[in-house]
Order: sequence, then C-alpha cells, then structure tokens
Amino acid sequence: MLYLVGLGLSDETDITVKGLEVVKKAERVYLEAYTSILLVDQSVLESYYGRSITVADREMVESNSDEILRDAATVDVAFLVVGDPFGATTHTDIVLRARELGIPVKSVPNASIMSAIGATGLQLYNFGQTVSMVFFLDNWRPASFYDRIKENRSIGLHTLVLLDIKVKEQSLENMARGRKIYEPPRYMTVGTCAQQMLEVEADKQEGVYGPESLAIGCARVGGKTEKFVAGTLQELCDADDALGPPLHSLVLLGKRTHELEHEYVREFAVNKETWDRIWKADYQTK
Amino acid sequence: MLYLVGLGLSDETDITVKGLEVVKKAERVYLEAYTSILLVDQSVLESYYGRSITVADREMVESNSDEILRDAATVDVAFLVVGDPFGATTHTDIVLRARELGIPVKSVPNASIMSAIGATGLQLYNFGQTVSMVFFLDNWRPASFYDRIKENRSIGLHTLVLLDIKVKEQSLENMARGRKIYEPPRYMTVGTCAQQMLEVEADKQEGVYGPESLAIGCARVGGKTEKFVAGTLQELCDADDALGPPLHSLVLLGKRTHELEHEYVREFAVNKETWDRIWKADYQTK
Repeated sequence: MLYLVGLGLSDETDITVKGLEVVKKAERVYLEAYTSILLVDQSVLESYYGRSITVADREMVESNSDEILRDAATVDVAFLVVGDPFGATTHTDIVLRARELGIPVKSVPNASIMSAIGATGLQLYNFGQTVSMVFFLDNWRPASFYDRIKENRSIGLHTLVLLDIKVKEQSLENMARGRKIYEPPRYMTVGTCAQQMLEVEADKQEGVYGPESLAIGCARVGGKTEKFVAGTLQELCDADDALGPPLHSLVLLGKRTHELEHEYVREFAVNKETWDRIWKADYQTK
Repeated sequence: MLYLVGLGLSDETDITVKGLEVVKKAERVYLEAYTSILLVDQSVLESYYGRSITVADREMVESNSDEILRDAATVDVAFLVVGDPFGATTHTDIVLRARELGIPVKSVPNASIMSAIGATGLQLYNFGQTVSMVFFLDNWRPASFYDRIKENRSIGLHTLVLLDIKVKEQSLENMARGRKIYEPPRYMTVGTCAQQMLEVEADKQEGVYGPESLAIGCARVGGKTEKFVAGTLQELCDADDALGPPLHSLVLLGKRTHELEHEYVREFAVNKETWDRIWKADYQTK
C-alpha cells in the first residue's frame, strides 16, 4: 500500500494520530521536501517518529517515482507531504503512477494552508482561486497571478497568494559545470511579494489592486508563532521584520466582505486608522 | 486559554497529536456538533480521549458562549470542531468574544473539506468560492448558490458544494408547543443536491450548468470508506446508492481543466464513454 500522509503545517506534533500509526509501521518512509517545508528539521521528525526518513527531492518524485513505489503492492510505503497530501499537483501524479502499477493507495488528510488561512478571520467562503508567486528575475517576471487576481476581484473575492520557496537550487555556473553544489534555501517574504505585486500593477495598469489595497501578511500559519499583519500593500512592503521568519503567505482582500471579518482582522492592522478609513471607503458591504 | 481544536473529517484518530495533548489536559472539553459531524459517535471520542465531552449545540455556541468561556483566562478550555476550527463563521465569533473578555486563544488546525476535496484529483488551484446548499421546502428554495456558481464558471473554476445537515431540529408543531422533541438528523445526499441544482437551472434558465454538466459526487471524504462517483448532474441524481452513507458533498467542474485532472477523475466515472465524450466536447483545454 502507498500511503500519502499529510504532516500539517508546523511541527512534528501536527501529524494526525492515524498518520503517525502509518509512519511507525511503514517499511519505508519518504518526505517530499520541495513544495513546502515544516518549521522543524528532518532530524526532529526522525527522532519523533522513531524512523529514518528518505528526503525525496523534485527529481526523485517526478522522474524516479518507481523507486518510491518499489514493492508497494506488497509492503507499506509512507510518502509524507507537508500540509495536505493533495495540496500540490505532484502528488496526484504519483497516485496515477501507482494505479498503473496496480498499487493500492490511501491518503491521510491534514491541514493545508488553503484552509488554515481561515485563521486570518476571513471567511473561507469568500476566497476565490489560490495563486502562486515566484521570485522575479531580471528577464523573467511571470505574472499570470495578475489575471487570476483580477478574476477573483471582479467578483469580490479574496485571494490567497502562496509564495515561492527555493530549495536545493543550483547556481547557473554550478549547473553548467555539473557540480552538485546547492544554494542556501530561499523563502519569499510578504515584503517581496507586495513589492512584486505593485511592480506588476505599475506595468499593466489595469487597476486590479494598488498601493492602498488591503491585504494580510501571514507568517507560520498554524504554528505556535503564527503572526498576521494587516495593512495596505504599500505598508506590507515593510512588514517583514514584524512578521519574522518563514514561511510567509499573503491574502489580498476582495470587496465582498462581512462585518465580522473587519472586526477580526483590524486587530492585526499596522495602522488601525488607515485600515478603517480604506475599509469604510472601498470594502464595506453597503 | 481557549483552544480551538480541529478534529479532521472522519474518526477519532484524525485528531493531531498536538490536538490530542490539548484535549487530554484541558479542564473542560466541548464539541461543536451542528455545522458538521464526524463519522463516529461521541462515546467513541470520549473513550478514545479518556475525557467526557459536553456537546455544544448552536444555541449554546451562539447565545451562551460565556459558559464555554467561563474561567478560560485561568484554566484551559478545549472547543472541538469537526474539520478545521476556522471552517465555519461561528468560530470566529467565539474568538472575538474571547478577545473581549481578555482570554488568550490558540487554534490547532486540521484537515477541512475545503482542502481535502483535492482527493478528487481536481487541483485546488482551480477551485473558486465554495457554496452551501440547503434542503428546499415547498415555499423556501434559497438559490444564492446559483449566482456564485455562475461567477465561478464564468472564469472556468470548479465549485465545491457543501450540503445541508439538520441536527437537533424541531418540527413546527413541537416548536409551537414548546416540546423539546427533536427530529432524527438528516443529511443531504448528492442525489438531492443534483436534483435541486437542476430544478434551479430549470427555473432560472441562465445556462450556468445543465443535465450534461460534469460533476463529482463525494462521500465520507478523508475516511476509510471515502467514495467518489463522477458523472453528469443527471447521472448523479441516481448515485446515492453507489455513494453510500453520509456525509456527502459535490463538486461541479469548471472548464479550466488540466489533462491530469481528467485522467485522475475518469476512474470514478459512472460511464466512462459519456464522461470522455462530454469532457472532450466541453471541458478539454484547447
């Protein structure tokens, strides 16, 4: 049996009791470690589970999944995923491959950022499609998120923006020379995200959002040190110190809001007067 | 401290290790039991946790939350919620009340149907806003879901439809006579949902969806007996036997689809030929 086990969002104790039983009994245990990360190290997980773990990088999962699935028709293999097992497309892929090989699959759900984001106080019913943002390069600034945010905002919905993480990346030089030397991991911050969003708006000028649009910067959602900072996109450009270490994500507010959301979120505002003024002018459901 | 603890979707072992520690140590334990239910009885939870639980009905949570919050500034109170603690609006309300009373709050996230629905193989990125559907009465057929589905479909997105549950409801007669006699619980099925959707389309005739629109009926998502049935809305009107016992939910497909989604979902199709024909004609990304 292939078990896809969600680990939740934060530390070793976020696994479910059901998931922990699977991990303890499985023949082999893999950890998918490139679409997201927990806030604790692999060694913490290993000592907590009492098991050694093989870290599965993108190459292994996407090109060498048969190694992960080896003998899984007869022995139990646990594939651990941060958040919920079906949060990322990659994992439907491995299930399809298992089906082809006649391997039975079970999944153990867990918290995902896509639902845990309700901790902002914004109602999950008022969210549209989730978008991702990658680090811009000088000559590569993929902005498909802009059109999707536009769609969400056109019908009044909030948008969750998931931020790029770079783990096990090679520099161009090391790649060219075939050296397996990896750069230190990088995690996009809310400040970078807000900055990039404003740059794209300045390019496109379709008025999807602007420096005075309201948003919530989110850090370590679901963890003990979870932190929210609410403000304008301009204010959030400078909120990284207040938010602290990774992982970060951002929610851009839609205009179809509920008074309860206002009351809940303003507690997190950088500047409550600014927040109240803009909310009243642009967001309050009339 | 007030702890909001998510229980996940299915049985007693879906609680996280972190959540279980909170429940074992809390002074009082409440279970919110009207926005959703687990697939096991309260007695199973009580013996698993080794704790007695007070079931909190809607009246208690919405009108008498101060009893739940009593002394919570000095002792630990656990408020258990099926799924994720912030899945339903109700729970932001109790946090706001706790804030007013100066009671610190922590939440323990868990799987929510809003993310676990990824187990259908549809990509969470391709979902728009979630809608709810209630049981229609002769003279009361609230159809606000229709406009929201229209919005989602206009931008190509899938829609998760959450289905009504009726627990601790009184008949009009018993209510009028002040008798605290409650009707047996009722859970909307995919068949009823599909039927009601088609009735509303027949009334409104805006072509948001129709008998040949593709959808997935979902039962006991995240549980050991999880079951998906994919088909047209017309086919799903008769899928209740195949789906089995509650809880049910439904996903109406949007037209912005990925080939991987097709491959994954057709496995669940009532009739693969019909599914392929309609997918190819109406859904396949050109």
